[in-house]
Amino acid sequence: MSDRYEIRVAGSGGQGVILAAVIIGQAAALMEEGLNSVQTQAYGPEARGGASKSEVVLAHGEIDYPKAASPHLQVILTQKASDEYAADTQKGGVVILDDFFVQEDPKIDAEIYRLPIVKTARDVIGREIVTNMVALGTVARILEVEGHMKPESIRNTIIASVPKGTEELNCKAFDEGYRLMKEKK
Amino acid sequence: MSDRYEIRVAGSGGQGVILAAVIIGQAAALMEEGLNSVQTQAYGPEARGGASKSEVVLAHGEIDYPKAASPHLQVILTQKASDEYAADTQKGGVVILDDFFVQEDPKIDAEIYRLPIVKTARDVIGREIVTNMVALGTVARILEVEGHMKPESIRNTIIASVPKGTEELNCKAFDEGYRLMKEKK
Repeated sequence: MSDRYEIRVAGSGGQGVILAAVIIGQAAALMEEGLNSVQTQAYGPEARGGASKSEVVLAHGEIDYPKAASPHLQVILTQKASDEYAADTQKGGVVILDDFFVQEDPKIDAEIYRLPIVKTARDVIGREIVTNMVALGTVARILEVEGHMKPESIRNTIIASVPKGTEELNCKAFDEGYRLMKEKK
Repeated sequence: MSDRYEIRVAGSGGQGVILAAVIIGQAAALMEEGLNSVQTQAYGPEARGGASKSEVVLAHGEIDYPKAASPHLQVILTQKASDEYAADTQKGGVVILDDFFVQEDPKIDAEIYRLPIVKTARDVIGREIVTNMVALGTVARILEVEGHMKPESIRNTIIASVPKGTEELNCKAFDEGYRLMKEKK
């Protein structure tokens, strides 16, 4: 990677975007040799309105500024979050949209992918609560293609992070998300 | 509060310090009128060694710099974390130490409290996994005494954040932590 790679996961309150970003940050720093990460969530007046975001910055060197001002990769799970945050995407970056909850494509200069993230959690896995794990699978594929991180680093961090007894369910959701993205890129 | 109040929770990997800080940040922004918060975890070479920290910055205005460079309040759950982080405490700030895992008091100009946080989780609640909720109870008491936040804001955020069916267990741990701190301040 260049010196800095910014990722943002955005959606609504119950979609687990914080845990998704925490897992990316831990995977990067604890499982990938030489990567540092800072993971942030900011709450303000806008958070009271419902769009919630969680960010991770990855770098080989020190990370002075921990916010993702212009993310190279965004996963956006609601229309409201798309309205609020899509325009920040780095020029030429990647935006992954939930194909059900985000109705309109943002008009931005980025690679845009519409994927059935929530639908896969709900209908394939049978538990909407694993939406964030499906999202992590899509992120893992992009990070693999771009040469930043191995999918196994994220998958193993999921296994270490989720409640005992739910590892299989969460990994299945992750694998489905990875597969969805791999069909496109 | 003055314009900015910094909190750090530090310990080892399995102690739930991230969730503790996430809950403080959510409680501040979503339940206290007019408070903003930014919550951060940084991972780097030092994290691979075992001391893990999670930070929250509270302010009435915008938060430009999201890290807690000089925390007004720290909860420190291991000796290693104390060695690494205690010295950063704001002059005259508050440091809460776990009385079992932190053997030595740091030599700093701060109010230092030694409390049986892990022991209470393990022996009173019967589940060491709620260590972070006991820690949150101690934080809630300090924030109440200093006039920054109501304990109910944190308690209600816990109820909204923990897995269904575990609310009572987690709240009991929170209440015990609050009580421990209230005996001292």
